[in-house]
Amino acid sequence: MVRVAVLGASGYIGGELLRLLLQHPEAELVAATSRTHAGEYVFRVHPNLRGTTELKFSSFDGGGLAGSADLAFAALPHGESVKAVPQLADAGLKVIDLSADFRLSDSRMYPVWYGYDHPRPDLLEKFVLSIPEINRDKVKGASLVSSPGCTAITAILALAPLLKDKSLGVDRDHIVVDAKVGSSGAGGKPSLSTHFSERFNVVRPYKPAGHRHSAEIEQVLASLSGERVAVSMSAHAVNMVRGILSTSHLFVSPPPKPIDVWKAYRAMYSGSYFVRMVRDKQGPFRLPDPKLVIGSNFCDVGFEIEERTGRLVALSATDNLVKGAAGNAVQSMNLMLGLDEKTGLTMAPLHPV
Amino acid sequence: MVRVAVLGASGYIGGELLRLLLQHPEAELVAATSRTHAGEYVFRVHPNLRGTTELKFSSFDGGGLAGSADLAFAALPHGESVKAVPQLADAGLKVIDLSADFRLSDSRMYPVWYGYDHPRPDLLEKFVLSIPEINRDKVKGASLVSSPGCTAITAILALAPLLKDKSLGVDRDHIVVDAKVGSSGAGGKPSLSTHFSERFNVVRPYKPAGHRHSAEIEQVLASLSGERVAVSMSAHAVNMVRGILSTSHLFVSPPPKPIDVWKAYRAMYSGSYFVRMVRDKQGPFRLPDPKLVIGSNFCDVGFEIEERTGRLVALSATDNLVKGAAGNAVQSMNLMLGLDEKTGLTMAPLHPV
Amino acid sequence: MVRVAVLGASGYIGGELLRLLLQHPEAELVAATSRTHAGEYVFRVHPNLRGTTELKFSSFDGGGLAGSADLAFAALPHGESVKAVPQLADAGLKVIDLSADFRLSDSRMYPVWYGYDHPRPDLLEKFVLSIPEINRDKVKGASLVSSPGCTAITAILALAPLLKDKSLGVDRDHIVVDAKVGSSGAGGKPSLSTHFSERFNVVRPYKPAGHRHSAEIEQVLASLSGERVAVSMSAHAVNMVRGILSTSHLFVSPPPKPIDVWKAYRAMYSGSYFVRMVRDKQGPFRLPDPKLVIGSNFCDVGFEIEERTGRLVALSATDNLVKGAAGNAVQSMNLMLGLDEKTGLTMAPLHPV
Amino acid sequence: MVRVAVLGASGYIGGELLRLLLQHPEAELVAATSRTHAGEYVFRVHPNLRGTTELKFSSFDGGGLAGSADLAFAALPHGESVKAVPQLADAGLKVIDLSADFRLSDSRMYPVWYGYDHPRPDLLEKFVLSIPEINRDKVKGASLVSSPGCTAITAILALAPLLKDKSLGVDRDHIVVDAKVGSSGAGGKPSLSTHFSERFNVVRPYKPAGHRHSAEIEQVLASLSGERVAVSMSAHAVNMVRGILSTSHLFVSPPPKPIDVWKAYRAMYSGSYFVRMVRDKQGPFRLPDPKLVIGSNFCDVGFEIEERTGRLVALSATDNLVKGAAGNAVQSMNLMLGLDEKTGLTMAPLHPV
Repeated sequence: MVRVAVLGASGYIGGELLRLLLQHPEAELVAATSRTHAGEYVFRVHPNLRGTTELKFSSFDGGGLAGSADLAFAALPHGESVKAVPQLADAGLKVIDLSADFRLSDSRMYPVWYGYDHPRPDLLEKFVLSIPEINRDKVKGASLVSSPGCTAITAILALAPLLKDKSLGVDRDHIVVDAKVGSSGAGGKPSLSTHFSERFNVVRPYKPAGHRHSAEIEQVLASLSGERVAVSMSAHAVNMVRGILSTSHLFVSPPPKPIDVWKAYRAMYSGSYFVRMVRDKQGPFRLPDPKLVIGSNFCDVGFEIEERTGRLVALSATDNLVKGAAGNAVQSMNLMLGLDEKTGLTMAPLHPV
Repeated sequence: MVRVAVLGASGYIGGELLRLLLQHPEAELVAATSRTHAGEYVFRVHPNLRGTTELKFSSFDGGGLAGSADLAFAALPHGESVKAVPQLADAGLKVIDLSADFRLSDSRMYPVWYGYDHPRPDLLEKFVLSIPEINRDKVKGASLVSSPGCTAITAILALAPLLKDKSLGVDRDHIVVDAKVGSSGAGGKPSLSTHFSERFNVVRPYKPAGHRHSAEIEQVLASLSGERVAVSMSAHAVNMVRGILSTSHLFVSPPPKPIDVWKAYRAMYSGSYFVRMVRDKQGPFRLPDPKLVIGSNFCDVGFEIEERTGRLVALSATDNLVKGAAGNAVQSMNLMLGLDEKTGLTMAPLHPV
Repeated sequence: MVRVAVLGASGYIGGELLRLLLQHPEAELVAATSRTHAGEYVFRVHPNLRGTTELKFSSFDGGGLAGSADLAFAALPHGESVKAVPQLADAGLKVIDLSADFRLSDSRMYPVWYGYDHPRPDLLEKFVLSIPEINRDKVKGASLVSSPGCTAITAILALAPLLKDKSLGVDRDHIVVDAKVGSSGAGGKPSLSTHFSERFNVVRPYKPAGHRHSAEIEQVLASLSGERVAVSMSAHAVNMVRGILSTSHLFVSPPPKPIDVWKAYRAMYSGSYFVRMVRDKQGPFRLPDPKLVIGSNFCDVGFEIEERTGRLVALSATDNLVKGAAGNAVQSMNLMLGLDEKTGLTMAPLHPV
Repeated sequence: MVRVAVLGASGYIGGELLRLLLQHPEAELVAATSRTHAGEYVFRVHPNLRGTTELKFSSFDGGGLAGSADLAFAALPHGESVKAVPQLADAGLKVIDLSADFRLSDSRMYPVWYGYDHPRPDLLEKFVLSIPEINRDKVKGASLVSSPGCTAITAILALAPLLKDKSLGVDRDHIVVDAKVGSSGAGGKPSLSTHFSERFNVVRPYKPAGHRHSAEIEQVLASLSGERVAVSMSAHAVNMVRGILSTSHLFVSPPPKPIDVWKAYRAMYSGSYFVRMVRDKQGPFRLPDPKLVIGSNFCDVGFEIEERTGRLVALSATDNLVKGAAGNAVQSMNLMLGLDEKTGLTMAPLHPV
């Protein structure tokens, strides 16, 4: 039984971590911290958890956690995690960070993408960006782990095998990632743009260029392919709360055969429970659709080939709060602790919902 | 380990039973029957289950099940269950029926509400209409159990304590139940009225009078109060897939104090994990809302009093496929088998979703 | 050509007034006031109006309007209208007020329902609460008009004929009005409860008892029936932006024949273009549904009878921003000016939407 | 007053044509044909039109129309229009066809994209593919007009100026069009994939490659740029009924300045009322979003530049049933008849909705 703490537990990702950890057979939830809600019952902020826990939020106390917890999840905002996490790491806790503050291995990228100089480049070297389906062995041995952004991990899982397999000949300069994202990805803070009457029924191109997750995606793909990869990403808010569909448009000359694309995916994902290949001949769900992964840690992946234009369309779908965040983090914890990676994560998706 | 079969497993309730049973630690799923899908993989019809089971649908074979299963869930349409279930019961299987065919204890009600003469009044006497929060002890000893309709159990859980506690003085002739129901309650068969473009954004009064679940509600309430109770029910389809909110309007003269209503609820539900009392002073979820029970077996119950008009508004919310159907059935199975009623049912609701 | 001004033009009702008035063939929009947006282009706040007007918001200047406008719509919050409107009325402008400040004819009701003493009981006497389908002639002769609340007018249009026709014998003590309302009825101000992730998919009983519109409904019904009427109202927020369905549950002993209910409706609404009677035998829209009135000034009305319980269910649907507010106000303006009441209001509802 | 007929008037596009034409000040609707609904009231099939017309559907009678109508809109399925329209054209009626049967000028494209040999290549030459903002003058002089597909016209309006202005240097081999489409684009026929419970909350990549509208887009862009253009299109169904957002990803080396892109758009759309340029610095609607055009004939267009990857993102939004179909057809009729193109089309979009 590992003693775990969740920092920044009042947000949507924090709440999802609590939901998963409260039922995890090998984890004991010892603390949930929140600056604004310290002292309040957790279920007041996450009303779905009413009746399942009497835990209260506590203040973050870096030193205090060292004695009472073995592992901490940090679900803090970018820029805050970089202040809190070093205390935990230095005190010897295992840490799984869900912010962007430890995702990029090259500290020079932080001023470019996040507008600050990273204070601890030494820690960046120690953090493993965890996508178990890609670097499971590294995660197993890690004490400090970073979990990717929700649109990043979703896109990466569709793209990684295609960039790693050089025989496909993917054009690395014209990769378009067009993401459709539910509202929970934007967090729990009200504003005019999230006001229901203004947000319902939208297809809002909220980040058509310059999306920060581009950096993570490029980092992972470059690492796998051994060459620079340019990712052109656009993100759209659509009319749902949970879920991401990532449509990746790749140009390949000559266009590949389906069997070759299959091979690339199988080479990477064979044995990975949480990646499901979806490419059916009939039915409403022939290809990945976030509707079918809601509440689960699955990432569904599929593809289509357009010979006429030499295009390969790679599709991937996740629940942004689960495989896109809290679920991937718990899966990483399982690996770090030597457990089966599926432990506590085998709930099937809800359907219909 | 009990061997269980699910009859009529291709519908939404059947699919939800499979989802719950596949993860139930004390149940082994040995068969899922479907007339139209026999031979197909279960995950073709319930694509959320892809990757979680390689089970195929089988044809229903009353005799065959007797040897291979100990307990059967029947999720067949009304009128079909009454044909299939007797074979199972006569062969000694425990049965949990989710249709209306064994809910009404008085066989004379079948021609009135369902338009057919019940062929097995003897079985009606043996079936227990299971609402564990009301008749847990009866369910524990039962071999044949019927699970109520989704709008029925939702309304009953809000109303039962108020009718049982005669000191409240509820007017039994003017009880209005106004239900708001998600689309999954109408099943999986396409039609013009369920066509997305026609169904999106509706508040459709699909059954403003004469709702069949009125009979079940009246039966339970009359039994608890010892007197005839008239329930005036209207059901509306709203713009969501899962969930029911039941708003029950009761007249009480003189209007009760909140503390007295609390007492009635506590007297009945103290110790019942799956009923959560919700009546907060602040926040967006001060009273029951189906949004907060999605994916779980909870029924949230709350109330408000309008002194001016002598009205007591009792509110209850369920996920219609879980506490409204499959979850209540699994909870009943647990009791019938001597297990903790929560076994396999402790997943917290998803939020936000 | 009448010169009109809209006060409080930055809210949803104000925006809908602008949308209607910009296209009204007999109205010239001379001013749109907003305290917080004075000086800004109207289309910055109401982006749907981009390209249709170059008007800017102005500050409210009671005296100034007197010279430049003939008629003013006041779409101000309750409590503010009561301060602004008297200046306009005293200066001789025709006024159509959309707040609650001039709806109740009995000034003693204001402390009870709205928590303030009305400063101008003399004006209350002069204001006509306008529901043209009920009191068209009074509106025609009026200079000061108040438009009812959106849930009030919707419920009233279903109930009025049934209470006016004493031969039906409606029980005036057990009238339940159960309303389902879209988000735009709550206005444009962001909060946690209107945050998309928290508001999507809800059926939220936001006002199960003590709804202020009860007072207006009772006032109108009592006036029509000549006797005190008690209205027990509950309002629910549902998963859509526009629209209201009002389900009114009435007890009648003995239950009426459909033909008698028809007669009551026809007696009142014959010749009223904007009330459509809906009671079909087939199709997805056999009874009123807000989906079918979106964007229009129609109020659809229908009913069902439950003989068993002696209940009459009266259903009505409106677009809360049109017939529930701005459209009814423009219809009232037409009558006040001696125009055909349909002028500028004949756009058919959108379907599907 | 022109006498108009609508063929195939029972579908969603047909219904929208009726809605627009019933209020058109210069058009008299003389017939609405439907094979399956002949003899029925129009408002039975289009219940939004209840109370606005007593018209009944008639059977299509090619000869009969010749005497009674001056102009016909054909909203028939692909493959049927090609049979019906020649009769009308040969009889001297003006025709506006909304199917794909007369959109492609090169008859050799029909076997490739639609699987049939076009029987009337002579008519293909006479038909003008009408996008008034691009070829207004041609439409003015035409008697036979074809209206583009909804995703085609939406994408074209964002792309046309960028391909026409050769100084921008757009890479014509790597143009990705990623469309997000509401359900009404798929028509009114129920199926499992349009069943509400299966369709709600989806982001379904229903046509990731090989979309037929690619052919129309390439035809128009090639014509404007004078060179072959390859369009790589993917279409997704999202959780709404009306609206399209088209995200076009273009590569340009070196990346253009915003002012140069502005110039290209202004050169083409200056004076075009129905194209609104949207590129704001703040607010929830800084870029095109279908939410803001619902119910109107507007197409909103905007763009963003990603210098790092040399990408130009061009965004466009329409109501697929209005500017994407019926509205563009009525606008075309206005031009053909010498009317102001805005006649009968100036209703502002609804907001919020």
